Amino acid sequence: MKPLLAAITACLTLSCAHAAELTRIPADAIATATALRERALTDPTAYDFVAGLTTEVGQRLAGSANDQRGRDWVAARFKALGFDKVWTEPVSYPRWVRRAEHAAIVAPFAQPLAVSALGNSPGTPKGGVRGEVVMFKDFKALQQADAASVKGKIVYIAYRMHAERDGHDYGPATAGRSGGPAVAAKLGALAFVLRSAGSDSDRLPHTGVTAFAPKEAQLPAAAISNPDADLLERMLGGAKSVTLHLDLDCGIDGHYSGANVIGQVTGSERPEEIVDIGGHLDSWDPGTGAIDDGAGVAIAAGAAHLISTLPQRPKRSIRVVAFANEEAGMIGGKAYAAAHSAEVGKHVLGAESDFGAGRIWKLASKVKPEALGAIDQMMQVLGSLGVQRGPNGAAHGGDFGSMGEAGMALLDLTQDGTHYFDWHHTANDTLDKIDPKDLNQNVAVYAVFAYLAAQADGDFGSAAAAAPAPSTH
Amino acid sequence: MKPLLAAITACLTLSCAHAAELTRIPADAIATATALRERALTDPTAYDFVAGLTTEVGQRLAGSANDQRGRDWVAARFKALGFDKVWTEPVSYPRWVRRAEHAAIVAPFAQPLAVSALGNSPGTPKGGVRGEVVMFKDFKALQQADAASVKGKIVYIAYRMHAERDGHDYGPATAGRSGGPAVAAKLGALAFVLRSAGSDSDRLPHTGVTAFAPKEAQLPAAAISNPDADLLERMLGGAKSVTLHLDLDCGIDGHYSGANVIGQVTGSERPEEIVDIGGHLDSWDPGTGAIDDGAGVAIAAGAAHLISTLPQRPKRSIRVVAFANEEAGMIGGKAYAAAHSAEVGKHVLGAESDFGAGRIWKLASKVKPEALGAIDQMMQVLGSLGVQRGPNGAAHGGDFGSMGEAGMALLDLTQDGTHYFDWHHTANDTLDKIDPKDLNQNVAVYAVFAYLAAQADGDFGSAAAAAPAPSTH
Repeated sequence: MKPLLAAITACLTLSCAHAAELTRIPADAIATATALRERALTDPTAYDFVAGLTTEVGQRLAGSANDQRGRDWVAARFKALGFDKVWTEPVSYPRWVRRAEHAAIVAPFAQPLAVSALGNSPGTPKGGVRGEVVMFKDFKALQQADAASVKGKIVYIAYRMHAERDGHDYGPATAGRSGGPAVAAKLGALAFVLRSAGSDSDRLPHTGVTAFAPKEAQLPAAAISNPDADLLERMLGGAKSVTLHLDLDCGIDGHYSGANVIGQVTGSERPEEIVDIGGHLDSWDPGTGAIDDGAGVAIAAGAAHLISTLPQRPKRSIRVVAFANEEAGMIGGKAYAAAHSAEVGKHVLGAESDFGAGRIWKLASKVKPEALGAIDQMMQVLGSLGVQRGPNGAAHGGDFGSMGEAGMALLDLTQDGTHYFDWHHTANDTLDKIDPKDLNQNVAVYAVFAYLAAQADGDFGSAAAAAPAPSTH
Repeated sequence: MKPLLAAITACLTLSCAHAAELTRIPADAIATATALRERALTDPTAYDFVAGLTTEVGQRLAGSANDQRGRDWVAARFKALGFDKVWTEPVSYPRWVRRAEHAAIVAPFAQPLAVSALGNSPGTPKGGVRGEVVMFKDFKALQQADAASVKGKIVYIAYRMHAERDGHDYGPATAGRSGGPAVAAKLGALAFVLRSAGSDSDRLPHTGVTAFAPKEAQLPAAAISNPDADLLERMLGGAKSVTLHLDLDCGIDGHYSGANVIGQVTGSERPEEIVDIGGHLDSWDPGTGAIDDGAGVAIAAGAAHLISTLPQRPKRSIRVVAFANEEAGMIGGKAYAAAHSAEVGKHVLGAESDFGAGRIWKLASKVKPEALGAIDQMMQVLGSLGVQRGPNGAAHGGDFGSMGEAGMALLDLTQDGTHYFDWHHTANDTLDKIDPKDLNQNVAVYAVFAYLAAQADGDFGSAAAAAPAPSTH
């Protein structure tokens, strides 16, 4: 109860006249949420969802033929799950396509490399490029390089990512993936190769997006698997220079009109007020998008479905958003905010699942002080699931981040990501990597929080950015 | 000392007059072997060997261009390690080549499959074959099938291999790989697909050899990865029949003349008597042949090298054999026996390392009863390395098996194979899968046993098959 007391204290200190505005969850809602939690732990809906999506559709690269198949599949499944309303909202973006990719060390010792082009990479000239490799230990070292050492060469960034529960090594690993090709292009490099941003030792490269500013020079860019990176570095450690051949047939191919797919369990008392949950529907193409992020959509759908089976609809609406093209930079999330941020005061709380299917171990919030007591009430139901309370104010929101910037209250429900980056963005992103029990723990957490947010008396601060806070009236 | 006592007792019981023929190892040899053991645990030779071979040559598919590169590399390294004599002995066989391979489920839900043609598989007709899948749970089920259920279809064997320290599930898993295509061909199948004989869940199929008798019908045959097999089986579990497309460009392409590469530390007293150790130099082509079996050749080379650094050459010669084309059926081992079985009485004891780079935990022998005491003496030096005594008579000898059939005494030095079949015959067979400390434990075991066998007074029974046993005189 500490945060609640803190909020009350803060309120009293500021001579707040709005003690009645403290957000509270009624006791009957707590009881219902507790029952939902238990049912969620054995409910097959979420696992069936991600099994079906990965089996009947498979990979869902944004803009590919499977993008449409995936949307059709999800819309049909949302309807079959009994959601009250299912619709799509347009999301458009430049379409990137992967056609073929090959890489090999040609000297001093010829060896093939397991390679994957990075999203947004242009192709090489036909027949590929061949050049000497210049290695940098990380992105920062590349940023500090002079053009003379890079010009005409193939830049290679060697940063080795390690497994962590919270995945905090992904940031340093992807700094080079996101920014390296553009920097290398400016320095006159021939191409860019990255040690995969992944914590495994499999011959399966990790793809992922890179970025070029609109008028920047572009550069063919790809990732090689960790064992291939080891091999390359053993050769780079020798006396002779190393020559690579890189042949990428990929690039931007026009514009694409996709969509976010949305399913809603419509509220019985305040249907226009919305609790937002979801995941992203697009995936990279080497795997089948099971952990990234079929699982996220499945968790949200499973939670909303459970709530829809209650004798009564919740007071507020619960909306499941299956976002388009998160991978190229949360494009679906930005489109959702563009469509809905004007009504952000009606979006009471949001959380996206996009970190695999491991158990949730932490709940961080970004809510108004007066709602901290309601979060504590949620924690009472979530504690037995192994969820610890994280800080208030730390939430980033994933695809709901743009809604968050517009003022929507957010939760981050942090999953155990120890193995997530072993499989993420590789051919290994397949259903077998999901433990149904762990998946259901996630469903339980989402069902509990979404239901309690829908039943709460008072909001979570979503209007804060839109309207002045009470204490500053 | 139990086996020694048993041997003595047996000898006495049979009124054996040859108590002097008990094989014994002198105390100074035990002391030297103990020192070798300790040096082996930190010696870099074996790891440098397998690192160099996998970096500078890579995969060594029998009959490929890399076969010759591998032999040249090993011969040069044997010389660099200071072996007294390095030579090759011819091994010839039909050359199987892999050019391209593709597989996909085309109905009811189109998905690509990670596939690898099996060694000896013929190619499909150009453009591939397309057919309905008929599933069998294991090889036995296929053997019991009637032709009507198989004719014109693609046979799929679903046997799922599990990880075990001693790898005992590999036999059941490879029954279908070895014999399935021939049986399916007889039943009129269109093609053959196997769930990989591997204990992992990676999108990396396990290749391996299949067999057709000379006048049998042949059939295109391939393995799909375990996650792909899961996917296929989910579809097979549905209401609709499943159609696969399989396109293999591979097959036998003439005859090839390769070689076993042999390095010898020549004995000082009885140079014509030989202790045989080794591994096989060929590998499958998706990986770099690190655990299968660069490690085996490296372990033997590292052990012989250590012995060569002693102030004095051992009494007997120690020979390291890097066998050709084990993968197609121990062809190099058979060639070695064809060349040397006439002199089998001079080959005192043999052991091949071909089960990865995990720690050795068991020593099984196939020696004459009078030599069991010498094996017990070896165990006194090996015990601190975690090696337990296995039975006498159980040894299979690997590539030395044909020499064993001719009468050569053998040891099986059983490695921990818990993870071996996660990586075996896949692209994941790379250097990072080798723990240098575990590799050196192997070197220590081989150095100890080979040196002690070279110094032993008396033999291990190698002449047993060539000459009548003493007790039956």
